[in-house]
Amino acid sequence: MPEMSSTVRDFAIAPTTGGVTAPQGFRSAALHCGIKAKTGALDLTVLAADGNASAAGIFTTNLAVAAPVIVSKRHLERSKGVARAIVVNSGCANACTGTQGMADADRMAAEVAKGLGCSPEQVLVASTGVIGVNLKMDKLVPGIQAAVPALARGAGSDTARAIMTTDPFPKECAVTVQTGAGSFTVGGTAKGSGMIEPNMATMLGFLTTDAVVPPALLQRALKESARDTFNAITVDGDGSTNDSLFVMASGASGVIIDDGSYPALLEAFLQVSRELALGIVRGGEGATKLIAVNVLDARSRDDARQVARTIANSPLVKTAVHGADPNWGRIVAAAGRSGIVFDIDRATVHVGGILLFENGLPHDGNAPQAGEYLKNPDVRIDVNLGTGGGANATIWTCDLSAEYVRINGEYRT
Amino acid sequence: MPEMSSTVRDFAIAPTTGGVTAPQGFRSAALHCGIKAKTGALDLTVLAADGNASAAGIFTTNLAVAAPVIVSKRHLERSKGVARAIVVNSGCANACTGTQGMADADRMAAEVAKGLGCSPEQVLVASTGVIGVNLKMDKLVPGIQAAVPALARGAGSDTARAIMTTDPFPKECAVTVQTGAGSFTVGGTAKGSGMIEPNMATMLGFLTTDAVVPPALLQRALKESARDTFNAITVDGDGSTNDSLFVMASGASGVIIDDGSYPALLEAFLQVSRELALGIVRGGEGATKLIAVNVLDARSRDDARQVARTIANSPLVKTAVHGADPNWGRIVAAAGRSGIVFDIDRATVHVGGILLFENGLPHDGNAPQAGEYLKNPDVRIDVNLGTGGGANATIWTCDLSAEYVRINGEYRT
Repeated sequence: MPEMSSTVRDFAIAPTTGGVTAPQGFRSAALHCGIKAKTGALDLTVLAADGNASAAGIFTTNLAVAAPVIVSKRHLERSKGVARAIVVNSGCANACTGTQGMADADRMAAEVAKGLGCSPEQVLVASTGVIGVNLKMDKLVPGIQAAVPALARGAGSDTARAIMTTDPFPKECAVTVQTGAGSFTVGGTAKGSGMIEPNMATMLGFLTTDAVVPPALLQRALKESARDTFNAITVDGDGSTNDSLFVMASGASGVIIDDGSYPALLEAFLQVSRELALGIVRGGEGATKLIAVNVLDARSRDDARQVARTIANSPLVKTAVHGADPNWGRIVAAAGRSGIVFDIDRATVHVGGILLFENGLPHDGNAPQAGEYLKNPDVRIDVNLGTGGGANATIWTCDLSAEYVRINGEYRT
Repeated sequence: MPEMSSTVRDFAIAPTTGGVTAPQGFRSAALHCGIKAKTGALDLTVLAADGNASAAGIFTTNLAVAAPVIVSKRHLERSKGVARAIVVNSGCANACTGTQGMADADRMAAEVAKGLGCSPEQVLVASTGVIGVNLKMDKLVPGIQAAVPALARGAGSDTARAIMTTDPFPKECAVTVQTGAGSFTVGGTAKGSGMIEPNMATMLGFLTTDAVVPPALLQRALKESARDTFNAITVDGDGSTNDSLFVMASGASGVIIDDGSYPALLEAFLQVSRELALGIVRGGEGATKLIAVNVLDARSRDDARQVARTIANSPLVKTAVHGADPNWGRIVAAAGRSGIVFDIDRATVHVGGILLFENGLPHDGNAPQAGEYLKNPDVRIDVNLGTGGGANATIWTCDLSAEYVRINGEYRT
């Protein structure tokens, strides 16, 4: 039935406002409960669905996992992918906090569940901030008790600010998707890598949608979209103890996602997640430039990703871009040590579309033009491996500045 | 025959002077031929054995290999591990230089061979300096023709200076080994990671000995000693296109190395190589501290090495040490993302012998003392994984300073 297929595949995506509470069926509240020292700084948020929502999550692969990660994984397993709410605090990561930390994360879920009248297993928990310090439960519990009655529509921007640690700006995004079966919305917020205080546990991301999505399909969409967005960024190669990405689907739009309409959901997830992920890179510590490293014509997508990641994590490449130095030699050397086999003589390097390396030889005549290009805040590096395999991947990163060293080298007091 | 075995194993090693020409049977010459712009700056050296020497080499695993690496590999294969000389220029890496670069590297070997009256295959070639620029053969050929007749004993220090690019200091070392069968000497020199000019191709190392060592045993000793010395250091994780480590054994001492006396040779190689390798780290770009990362009680040595390398390459750990911040959280997080499985709750972290992390919990009371310790120029981090496997490894690195960014981010002019 090509007609039906073309109908459901025929979708249009447009940006909208409202961030993580843009989709129907979600409310949130954010407040200052006292975990952050600064008076009035938002440090607690609850994001709740009006009823039971499908839920999925992706977590840090770091062995040193924080208590909220352990609790949220367990809740998703026990509830079989059904959630009512996510509770998040900033200012304290509840990581490396032992049995007390586990009890505190459990208590956070229990307090939200009590307020909403649901099972604790239907509440996901996330924390971000200093590692190795216990949560101030005497502040947090009254905070949760105050937040639940304050849940409101349109408070997504407050949630975006409440999850920040030292991010230079909040990150939120939403899109509406028009399909033959009706329209639905995807929203999201994330926080990243502004780690001016040492021992910060870093990335959190939250997506919502009012589409009707079974948990298994939701998990698939989250995993597939994260691969090329949240999992395709690197600030300094250091993964944290708390990284979590959650999604809840309220179903309030009535638009059912099945195999036919899945591409529309995936594309919306990709767009929202890419915007949030690039925001994390732009707000990276000491970052002055966003660098897209595109690796083309690898034998496989994994190969392409590995080469791109090696280039993106090379301090020599990152400092060269910081200094607007069209240093193709460092790019070639990073690709060469990535562990992926290719023929250097067939590879090309372009910076901003300007050819710098081909047939094993430099095009140094183009260097001044490329140097001018590199003064832009958004920079693109293309490395074509010439394997004939045709597989591509992009990794985004930021430049490495003296400010990064200053931020991370400051004596902990 | 335990007595014989104990006789040959019974050896004593003492430092001596003379660097790479300390062993008998070697001469060297170094001069300014004009590759470096600065008048009088040594940029060419020839290191020659008086007769045929056993030879071995270890090369960069980067796919982007420079012409001298290709030529030297080929010569070692064709000569079956016999060499008369090594010729090295600094100021130009002869990398990414295509067929002209191959011809130039061949010519370097041929000119030395003509002067010494040996086969070109008995000459090893190394270059270090800017990538993507052809050698000035009009300077280099007369330079080689002048260097060969000038070969002299005791010129090892000149060789150590002639291989420098922007290394802050020359690196040389020698030891004498007393065994029951007589004494022999091992010498060496190396250059590292002072890459103030961009596009530099980095590490070169040259060892010599007057012991009698068959090529296969020499290769084994080089490989085994490099694993825990030259291959156990990292400045920024970026391997170069030109990295080469050569050894020549003249046999002039008459001391025959066999399976029984092999440990004495290996230990001497380890001592000389460790001294040179640590010199490279100390002279790393912007380095103010030498950091030894010891990983203990891993399941295997490879596991221990991988965890240690991940910690040593973590920009967050390197900046923390730079700022004398006893940031155990970054150390634990780096270990946790290394890809090696262990139980975080059984791991411990000590900095300078001061306990900072145990049983999944911090010992923050010790942080001020550890912060004081980190102000030292030599810093030790011990991470015990507690697997019961008992395997250990050490990786040495330097701190990450704003000066590193300044050096590498300077606009290429």
